[in-house]
Amino acid sequence: MADILVVGSLAYDEVQTPFEHRREVLGGAASYFSLAACLYSPVRVVGVVGDDFREDDIDRFRRRDIDVRGIERRRGRSFHWFGRYAYDMSTAETLNTDLGVFDGWCPELAPEHREVPFVFLANIHPAIQLNVLDQVRTPTLVALDTMNYWIEHERAGLEKVIARADVVTLNEAEARQLCVTFSIIRAARKILDMGPRALVVKRGEHGAMLFMRDERGDGGGQSPSPSVFWCPAYPLEKVQDPTGAGDSFAGGFVGSLASSGALDADALRRAVVHGTVCASFAVESFSVDGVEAASADGIARRYRALRSLVGIGAETLAEVAPPGR
Amino acid sequence: MADILVVGSLAYDEVQTPFEHRREVLGGAASYFSLAACLYSPVRVVGVVGDDFREDDIDRFRRRDIDVRGIERRRGRSFHWFGRYAYDMSTAETLNTDLGVFDGWCPELAPEHREVPFVFLANIHPAIQLNVLDQVRTPTLVALDTMNYWIEHERAGLEKVIARADVVTLNEAEARQLCVTFSIIRAARKILDMGPRALVVKRGEHGAMLFMRDERGDGGGQSPSPSVFWCPAYPLEKVQDPTGAGDSFAGGFVGSLASSGALDADALRRAVVHGTVCASFAVESFSVDGVEAASADGIARRYRALRSLVGIGAETLAEVAPPGR
Repeated sequence: MADILVVGSLAYDEVQTPFEHRREVLGGAASYFSLAACLYSPVRVVGVVGDDFREDDIDRFRRRDIDVRGIERRRGRSFHWFGRYAYDMSTAETLNTDLGVFDGWCPELAPEHREVPFVFLANIHPAIQLNVLDQVRTPTLVALDTMNYWIEHERAGLEKVIARADVVTLNEAEARQLCVTFSIIRAARKILDMGPRALVVKRGEHGAMLFMRDERGDGGGQSPSPSVFWCPAYPLEKVQDPTGAGDSFAGGFVGSLASSGALDADALRRAVVHGTVCASFAVESFSVDGVEAASADGIARRYRALRSLVGIGAETLAEVAPPGR
Repeated sequence: MADILVVGSLAYDEVQTPFEHRREVLGGAASYFSLAACLYSPVRVVGVVGDDFREDDIDRFRRRDIDVRGIERRRGRSFHWFGRYAYDMSTAETLNTDLGVFDGWCPELAPEHREVPFVFLANIHPAIQLNVLDQVRTPTLVALDTMNYWIEHERAGLEKVIARADVVTLNEAEARQLCVTFSIIRAARKILDMGPRALVVKRGEHGAMLFMRDERGDGGGQSPSPSVFWCPAYPLEKVQDPTGAGDSFAGGFVGSLASSGALDADALRRAVVHGTVCASFAVESFSVDGVEAASADGIARRYRALRSLVGIGAETLAEVAPPGR
């Protein structure tokens, strides 16, 4: 079991769905990530909050033995986000973003945080992500998330940090935007060519795809086809709040890798299933309540359900190959 | 290996995509279905064509040993369909439908067609589907397809034929429309309650889901949760013409069941993979060219690729269940 460092936002969200409207609920990428990842391995959070951040909410992390010493409290208002979902309960429309104390913040890592082997750079300015990477010493695995805004406005910086990441997580639209192509397979090839060993494309209710550089490739000329893994979303009848699905996914993903220590292709595939499971808990309730309520048993149950969702009993050759003509 | 009977349209299509425009190409549900299913088991087609239907096109079926004696030639024009796809290469917009000789046609099955054990009722008027069911004797399996038009205009007849089918195939939007719910899981439960043993929900590039009535249920009160299987779509870089994907899917699905004779849950799951493979060949080329070009080897290769797309090596308990807190 290895430690995980996450650098990202701690926020208060206002979330509007066609069915409900909630205000001032705990949000932020680092919150979702930590509460999911801590189910697997010890987590240390690095982030910034304002005077309005409730001590109760920091206690929610403490109760999970999350190291909160990297949370800096500054004068001013915490990061606030206001988003709305349409009936498809899929992509959020951002109605307002108030960076508050997050604006201009750049973390200085404490010595004990520089040695952490698993690092998740949540969706923040690529310059901050690069700065954090300059402070950590030889991490085992760096995972990275980003968003359309940075693809549009900070492409050069983003490409630099992608080149230094081991795993990149993007949603479908971001992958297409980053690579200016509709084809997810072409986008995946382009992103893996930038440097990372693996790419996760998150597709909401359609699951997640993992692309891994085929390291058996001959290295000459054209990039070899990446190897692909596809995990369906956990089928839910009720989705209450899709916010944080991607960060909870990252929490389960990085958490499971840090927990086992294995980084081979099968371990990455399993990590995608764990990410999917954590995301399913996240979207069932508002705010971080869903990941917070998840248990090890519940995770194992959903993990097995997801595996049986794609499983078939042993197959004979005749069942795989038609008789032919 | 058991015989398959398909009743459905034989047509000429005009297909417009953002990239290409083809006219007078062989189409129709029965064409796609037969050319896919015949890779697995002997197929007999029942349909109607006009004087304009090219003998060359009937030869394409004959070359695959498809029994074409059930194709009736009538005076008039063959069924013509004109559809357009947008950049997402997903759902077709129908620009024109000319039923031609298909209008008012109702097949009278020949004696040798009444005994065929596997029956596919392609998308036609529910009254014709019911009439065909009245003519066949104790089939082993009846699979049924339909479309939004019949859901809207012939619901009562459609519900009757659904009640007599073993397997229903619908796309996502049709399942939602039929059950007046957004939730695919709720829709599946409702459709299985109408009578069929299994439902396949086709989701285009997002794969297909198979819902099966859980026959271990206690039979009392609320319907038990259906058992679910999810097969991803075969990842393609090039999609040329999505027309016929659903019927080619049905061809691989029914074909593989007729080929093995097994109808248990694993056989149905494998049939979904075979359907997915056949659909992938169909959409790679215009018209039926893709399914026509598919070989037993090609099918087995894609079948294995789809299985490895969702596969993970053997898992230890620790890899499934997080350590917990």
